[in-house]
Amino acid sequence: MTVTTPQGFRAAGVAAGLKSTGAPDMAVIVNDGPLDAAAAVFTSNRCKANPVLWSEQAIRGGTARAVVVNSGGANCYTGPDGFAITHATAETVATELGVGAVDVQVCSTGLIGMLNDRDHVLAGAAEAARKLGTDGGAAAARAIMTTDSHPKNAVATGTGYTVGGIAKGAGMLAPQLATMLVFLTTDAEVTAAELDRALRSATAPTFDRLDSDGCQSTNDTVLLMASGASGVRPDPVEFAEAVRAVCHDLAMQLLGDAEGADHEITIDVRNAASEADALEVGRSVARSNLFKCAVFGNDPNWGRVLASIGTTAAAFDPADLDVALNGVWVCTSSGPGEPPDKVDMGERQVTVEIDLKAGTESATIWTNDLTHAYVHENSAYSS
Amino acid sequence: MTVTTPQGFRAAGVAAGLKSTGAPDMAVIVNDGPLDAAAAVFTSNRCKANPVLWSEQAIRGGTARAVVVNSGGANCYTGPDGFAITHATAETVATELGVGAVDVQVCSTGLIGMLNDRDHVLAGAAEAARKLGTDGGAAAARAIMTTDSHPKNAVATGTGYTVGGIAKGAGMLAPQLATMLVFLTTDAEVTAAELDRALRSATAPTFDRLDSDGCQSTNDTVLLMASGASGVRPDPVEFAEAVRAVCHDLAMQLLGDAEGADHEITIDVRNAASEADALEVGRSVARSNLFKCAVFGNDPNWGRVLASIGTTAAAFDPADLDVALNGVWVCTSSGPGEPPDKVDMGERQVTVEIDLKAGTESATIWTNDLTHAYVHENSAYSS
Repeated sequence: MTVTTPQGFRAAGVAAGLKSTGAPDMAVIVNDGPLDAAAAVFTSNRCKANPVLWSEQAIRGGTARAVVVNSGGANCYTGPDGFAITHATAETVATELGVGAVDVQVCSTGLIGMLNDRDHVLAGAAEAARKLGTDGGAAAARAIMTTDSHPKNAVATGTGYTVGGIAKGAGMLAPQLATMLVFLTTDAEVTAAELDRALRSATAPTFDRLDSDGCQSTNDTVLLMASGASGVRPDPVEFAEAVRAVCHDLAMQLLGDAEGADHEITIDVRNAASEADALEVGRSVARSNLFKCAVFGNDPNWGRVLASIGTTAAAFDPADLDVALNGVWVCTSSGPGEPPDKVDMGERQVTVEIDLKAGTESATIWTNDLTHAYVHENSAYSS
Repeated sequence: MTVTTPQGFRAAGVAAGLKSTGAPDMAVIVNDGPLDAAAAVFTSNRCKANPVLWSEQAIRGGTARAVVVNSGGANCYTGPDGFAITHATAETVATELGVGAVDVQVCSTGLIGMLNDRDHVLAGAAEAARKLGTDGGAAAARAIMTTDSHPKNAVATGTGYTVGGIAKGAGMLAPQLATMLVFLTTDAEVTAAELDRALRSATAPTFDRLDSDGCQSTNDTVLLMASGASGVRPDPVEFAEAVRAVCHDLAMQLLGDAEGADHEITIDVRNAASEADALEVGRSVARSNLFKCAVFGNDPNWGRVLASIGTTAAAFDPADLDVALNGVWVCTSSGPGEPPDKVDMGERQVTVEIDLKAGTESATIWTNDLTHAYVHENSAYSS
């Protein structure tokens, strides 16, 4: 039920001493082939961490044999020394595996602006590369955690092949600096171009629509590696759907474990003039601190939803918007509708439905509430 | 030291019964002339409150004789009934003053999506219009408060004339739904066009750059009325500067009284390729919940500043950014600079300096930290 569920992959997770707690903080996942096709999407933040700078270049040929991941330090804004550590990490794993450094993707997560201890990183990477096992996925999932409260694994099964994945991130895409990292594997026989297409079509409606706190990480990486070990050439539509299913599963696990969150909020925007409009509206509501505080307080404050919608450029009539909270249409035609006290906000799941009455397109954005625990966790992160 | 300091203005503040506490909640400010020139800027939120819809139309001719303001209910998303109350409020005050309804600006602030009690509003408006006094500015400043902890007054003196102002808002422009309202008066002899120019050049570098929580109100209004009672035609440059000085003073009072804030954060962006770039970068940092939580925790977490800069389209080299916190250049060339423990974040004032090294333009944005008190206040506002 993890990245080593598909055939042709081994993984390991070890403690390299980067986390002061002594918890596992170094993972390696290896693709034993026969294929080494790979695709990845990286953060669109222009201030990228050193591992992202490395991995973006290394994956250009559409291949990767392995990924090495450390938690406990993001290796971001650490200058040439930080990049040198990333490079040496790839070299170390490559040497252990008998491949080239360019075949090794590198990811890091944790506090930024802090140089990781080079000796710890390299020793840990080598150790993980020597401890690889076909049952190592769960250990890898655990080793990449930072403020996550539990490891995140998922699989989807196609016709004769499997897609597996692990993720970390107590914040989200457009996310938390704690960083979202996702590693996906499949034993389907697919080319790098096919992988890339499936991956991009899977991340767009899943991770890209997760917006826990509006803060976009410097380290985000979603990597998909194919071993081809099943010998099965999948139907492209079924394969894309399997990849999407694993991404959706992991995205919902990230949403459920977001830092300090009391509620998982699903924002469904419907009848928009375009999907872009629906996304803009959903993201605007997802980034309203006032609305997120209201949800934390179990307060069905729909006015804050309309105020957020009003800041967008989407097509709609400001006097004719409908909003439902947990199925109760508390706002109709931009005025009071059903009584807000009919809305039960006590459950962890909160649904916001927004009817723009401007077209036929729709989109869903997921976010969390803004809580005391979020403020606490993020005011004390580096101190 | 308030809106009745300039000659030609009377004001009042009374309790109309809209606030459950019985505190003053209705203000009227009247311009006795001889001039009735006026200019205003309103929220750019497309979901505008009923008083904004009224006042935007009423001020088109560049004149206003009075403004009537209620706190205790924003009269926003209250449909045709809400607009009817706004209209009737203007009529009531106009009748008391012997002017036309179109000469009366109307503003409301408080919870949105809730209809104010019509009888209370109209009786209160009439009472305030009957209690006007040349010393009534302070009472008006008090009556427009919502979650403000104290009233906000300011004046600036020109050569032979005065500019006065009051403001409310525990959140800010691009602000809090608690709404920012600002009323400015002057006895200078100026035309509506001159007023409009001075007002827009004054609000752009002051209120427009205040971004406490990224949430833009539906009710924001900044109104400037000129009586001409001093008989002095001001130098346009000096007059604009006087208006700007009052706006800046009030903006800093709003910043200092922001809901739940422990810190006032000044973000100075310098050496930008354009002022727009500087503003985009400053606003991005001001809207980073992670950075704002770090400031609350007295944590000089400069990596969160760079991560926010990286989400913008401004011109800069991601590998060559400098950031100072309270004067300590903790980040140089996008890497660690001076030790963060040199930064004292214990004071209420925090300064962030960002050197983009991409040009000669600069801009300042003001914001607050994200605190437990903010979450508390905004999770319990309507309940």
